[in-house]
Amino acid sequence: MTDDLLPATVLAALAAVKPWEGNRFLTGLEPGVEGIASLLDLATAIRDRQDELARSRPLAGKVFAGMFFDPSLRTRTSMDVACAKLGAHFVDLQPGNSLWTLEFADQVVMDGQSAEHVIEAAGVLGRYADALGLRAFPGRGQWEKERSQPVHTAFADHCGVPMLNLEGPLAHPCQGLADALTMRDLLGSPKGKKLVLTWAPHPKQLPMAVANSGIWAGASLGMDVVLAHPEGFELDPLALSEARRLAGETGGSFRVSHNRRDALADADVVYAKSWGAISGLTATSGGHADAVSALSNWTVTEDDLKQGKPARFMHCLPVRRNVVVADAVLDGPLSSVLDQAANRVWAQAAVLMALLGR
Amino acid sequence: MTDDLLPATVLAALAAVKPWEGNRFLTGLEPGVEGIASLLDLATAIRDRQDELARSRPLAGKVFAGMFFDPSLRTRTSMDVACAKLGAHFVDLQPGNSLWTLEFADQVVMDGQSAEHVIEAAGVLGRYADALGLRAFPGRGQWEKERSQPVHTAFADHCGVPMLNLEGPLAHPCQGLADALTMRDLLGSPKGKKLVLTWAPHPKQLPMAVANSGIWAGASLGMDVVLAHPEGFELDPLALSEARRLAGETGGSFRVSHNRRDALADADVVYAKSWGAISGLTATSGGHADAVSALSNWTVTEDDLKQGKPARFMHCLPVRRNVVVADAVLDGPLSSVLDQAANRVWAQAAVLMALLGR
Amino acid sequence: MTDDLLPATVLAALAAVKPWEGNRFLTGLEPGVEGIASLLDLATAIRDRQDELARSRPLAGKVFAGMFFDPSLRTRTSMDVACAKLGAHFVDLQPGNSLWTLEFADQVVMDGQSAEHVIEAAGVLGRYADALGLRAFPGRGQWEKERSQPVHTAFADHCGVPMLNLEGPLAHPCQGLADALTMRDLLGSPKGKKLVLTWAPHPKQLPMAVANSGIWAGASLGMDVVLAHPEGFELDPLALSEARRLAGETGGSFRVSHNRRDALADADVVYAKSWGAISGLTATSGGHADAVSALSNWTVTEDDLKQGKPARFMHCLPVRRNVVVADAVLDGPLSSVLDQAANRVWAQAAVLMALLGR
Repeated sequence: MTDDLLPATVLAALAAVKPWEGNRFLTGLEPGVEGIASLLDLATAIRDRQDELARSRPLAGKVFAGMFFDPSLRTRTSMDVACAKLGAHFVDLQPGNSLWTLEFADQVVMDGQSAEHVIEAAGVLGRYADALGLRAFPGRGQWEKERSQPVHTAFADHCGVPMLNLEGPLAHPCQGLADALTMRDLLGSPKGKKLVLTWAPHPKQLPMAVANSGIWAGASLGMDVVLAHPEGFELDPLALSEARRLAGETGGSFRVSHNRRDALADADVVYAKSWGAISGLTATSGGHADAVSALSNWTVTEDDLKQGKPARFMHCLPVRRNVVVADAVLDGPLSSVLDQAANRVWAQAAVLMALLGR
Repeated sequence: MTDDLLPATVLAALAAVKPWEGNRFLTGLEPGVEGIASLLDLATAIRDRQDELARSRPLAGKVFAGMFFDPSLRTRTSMDVACAKLGAHFVDLQPGNSLWTLEFADQVVMDGQSAEHVIEAAGVLGRYADALGLRAFPGRGQWEKERSQPVHTAFADHCGVPMLNLEGPLAHPCQGLADALTMRDLLGSPKGKKLVLTWAPHPKQLPMAVANSGIWAGASLGMDVVLAHPEGFELDPLALSEARRLAGETGGSFRVSHNRRDALADADVVYAKSWGAISGLTATSGGHADAVSALSNWTVTEDDLKQGKPARFMHCLPVRRNVVVADAVLDGPLSSVLDQAANRVWAQAAVLMALLGR
Repeated sequence: MTDDLLPATVLAALAAVKPWEGNRFLTGLEPGVEGIASLLDLATAIRDRQDELARSRPLAGKVFAGMFFDPSLRTRTSMDVACAKLGAHFVDLQPGNSLWTLEFADQVVMDGQSAEHVIEAAGVLGRYADALGLRAFPGRGQWEKERSQPVHTAFADHCGVPMLNLEGPLAHPCQGLADALTMRDLLGSPKGKKLVLTWAPHPKQLPMAVANSGIWAGASLGMDVVLAHPEGFELDPLALSEARRLAGETGGSFRVSHNRRDALADADVVYAKSWGAISGLTATSGGHADAVSALSNWTVTEDDLKQGKPARFMHCLPVRRNVVVADAVLDGPLSSVLDQAANRVWAQAAVLMALLGR
C-alpha cells in the first residue's frame, strides 16, 4: 500500500497506532490503553473520510475471512461493510456449507466425526486471508475451559495472520471498541464520567462477553464504571480484575453494586445488557427463567435515565423491548443504540487498517 | 459521486429520472408512469455502457443489503451482479444465519420467540446499508393483512434509507421493470401493442406478485393488456384497479378475459404465469391440485403464439416445462425468457443508480 | 480489458496460453499438455504480481458464479479470493437458498419435485455470470452414469459461457492444476521425477476425483507416476488410460502398484489420498469400514518419506490426522499441504484470466 491512498488525517492517525505484539484482537485489550485510544482516533478519521477511502481502496487485494459458528446480523454485516469501505474483500464462512466439525486435541486418531484439524483449517485460511475473524459462543457446562476462548486461541496459534474475535466466550472486543467510540461521541471526553453497566432481564441465558467488554471499554476511557447486577449474576473474576487494572491505568474507577437505584444515580451512560448466571455456564441446565421472573424491576425505564443528569442509553442489540428496556427509552431522545451499532463499522475498520494497512 | 464517473448518456438518463417521494420501490409504481419510462431509459443507457461503469465504479462505497426470507436464484444473483456492475457492495442476509424471527407489533413485551423488533433491525441495517431490499412471500390464510405488504412497509418505515421490494405478496416490481424493459427491447415502441398475461397450470399455489407487476408493466407502457385466466383465479381487486388506472394514464387499455382463445388473438406478447386462487391465500388449505388438473389446456403451446402475428413468449422463471409451457415454445425462436432474466440486472441497476447515484 | 492493466510478465504469460475449444475446464485436460504448462506459467506470473493486479483489477465487471451442491471450504474460498485478486466478482450459490432441485431429463412433464430445468437454470446463470463453476459429488449406486459428469456437462451445454468443474465425480481439475503448480514449485523441473500417489485409509468412502486429477497432473508434467493402492481400490479405467496417454505425450510414465513399499522407493513426492472402492460407487452400500480397518499400514508415516531421497508430502485437505497420515509428517518439514492449498488461488486465477481476461 502506498501512503497516497490515505487522506492525511487517516495517515496520521494510522501512524499513531503502535503495532502490538501478536497482532491479535481476542480480548480487545491487546493494544493496551494507549493503543485503544489511538484506534478510536483512527476510527474517527476513517469515518470522517469514508467517501475518499471507498474510492482509493487502501486495502485493495486484502482478504478478511469471518467464521461464524454462531448466528450474527450486526457483526457479520458491519465487518463486511467495513471491508467494503476500505476496498478489502470479506469472505463469509458458515457451518454446514463451508465450516465443519473440527478437531482441536493434540495427537488424536481422527477416525470419528471431525473431518479436519484446526491446525490445517487455520493454516489454510491464513493462506487465503490476510486476517481472520471468528465467532463462537461458549458451550454449556464447560465454562472453566471456555473462559480462555480456546477455539479463538487455537485458530490464532495456527493461522499465521492477524486474528480478530467476532464474539467469544469471554469478550466481544469489536463491540467494546465501538462502545468506546460511541461514548466518546456522546461525551466528548469520557474521562471521569459515570458509566453504569446494568444487568437486565431476558428469557434466555445469554453469554457475558458484551458485559465484560463493556466494563473494559469504560475503564479504558478512564470512566467511573459501576457494574450493577442482582446477586447470583456475577461476571467472571477475570473480567472484574481486568476492569480494575484498566481503571488503575487510566485514573478511572470500577466497582460492583447490587443496589440498582444507587448505581444509576448521576449516570452519564446507562448500558443495559442481560446475561445468564455463571452457574448456568458451569452447569448444563439452570433455573434461569425462574430467577429472571422475579427480577422484572431491572428492566430499564425512562425514569432510570433521570436519576441526576439525563443519562444516555446504550445496548448492543438485538434487544427485547419491554423486557430489557422500555419502548419509551428506545424510542426516545436518550437512546444511542443505532449510533452504537453504526460505530461497529468504523471501530472494525480501524482495527483492519491498523493490522493490514501498512 | 462526481459526474465524471458516468458516461454522458448515463448521466443524461439519470438526470431525466425525477426523484420520487419516499424513495421506495415497493409496488414499483412509486416513480409514476413517466418515472418508469425514464428508469427504462436509464437501464438501457447503463446496459450499453456497462464496461465503462464496471471500471469507474460510480457507486463505490455504497452498500445494498438484500434480505431473503424466501428462496431466490434470479433476484439475489441479479441484484448482486447489478451492484457489482456499478461498484456497489451487495450484502446477502438470510434467515437462520443472519436473520431471525422479528417482532412487528407495537408495544409488545418481547418475552417470546422474537429476538429483535423490526424497529431496531431496520434501523441498524439502514445504518450499514445505503439501500435495503427484502423478499417475503405471503403466509397462508392471511391475505387481508398480507396484501398491504406489511413486512416491506415496516422495514421501509424504520430503515431511513431507500427500500426495494425483491418480491412481496402484492408486487414484484424489479421483475415488472425488467419485463417492461424486455417488451421495449422486443417491440421498440410497445404503445398500442397487445400483451396477454395468461394464467398457466402449476402443481403449487404460487403467489400472484409477478402477475400483478406484469399487467402493471404493460399498462405503464400504454399497451393493450388482456389478463386471461380461468374463473376462480381472479387477481386481487387492487391489482386490477391499478392496471386500469395506469392504462388510463398512458392511453393503453386493460381487460380481463376467461376466454383463452379470444384473449390470445393477435397478441404481440404472451406472458405466462401461474398463481393460486386468492381463496388459497385466504384459506389455510385449498383444492389447488384438483382445480389445476382440469385446466391443462391452459398450458402454452406453439400454436398459442400464432393466433395472428407471431407473439413473443415471456415468463419470469423458474418454469415447469410441459406444465406451464411446452418445450417447443421455450426452445423455439419466439421465447424471450433468458433475455427477460438478463434484463433484471439492468432494471435493478437503474433503480440503484436513481436512488443512490446522485 | 485493455492490456495496460496487466504487468508485462502476466501479459506475456497470458498471450502464451492458446485458447482451447469449448472454453471448458471439466476434466482439466481440455487445454492439452502444452496448455496446462502455459497455465502454470500464467499462475506463477499472477502470483508474483498479485499486488499490482489487485489494484488494476483486470477482470473488473466480470462475474464468476460458483454453484456448490456439496460442501466446500478450500474450493469456495480460494475461488472467491482468486476473483478478488483480479477484480472479478464471485457469486456464491448454494442449495436451499439459491439452488433447488433441477430437472435434467429431456421432454419431461415437470409436475414433480423439480422447480426448474437445467436448460433455464444454466441459461440464466450464463446471462448473469461470465463464467460458471459447479461442485457436485457422485450419488451412490450411479457410477456408470456419474463418471461422465453429467450435471457439469449439462450446465456447460446450456450456459453459453466458460464452465469450470469445482469437483465432480471424475475430476477435480482446479486441485489438479494447483497440485501441478506445487510440484513445479517443489521440484523446479518435475520431468523425470517420481510421484507416488498412494491410497490411504479413511473411515468414509470418499470420491476418486482428486486421485484421478493427481495422477493426471503428474503425467502432464512428464513425471514417473506410480499409483499405489490395495487391491479392490482400483480407479476408473478411464482415469488410468488418460494417465497413460498423458505420460506418453510428455515422456513420463505411469504404472499401478499394489506393493506399497516398492512404490514408495525413491519417491520425490508422496501424495496421499483416500477413496472408496468403485464397487461402493456402483453399489448403494459397501463394507468400506471393514475393508479399511485391515489396511491401517497404508497410513503415511515419516519413514515412508525416507525410502531413498526425502520425499515431499502432499494432500489435498481436509485430512484425518493419524488415519491418513501421521502427525509427524504434517508437522514436519517435508509437508507441503499448506502451500498446495495456497496454490489453489493462483491456479484458479490463471484459468479465470485465460478464459475471461482477453
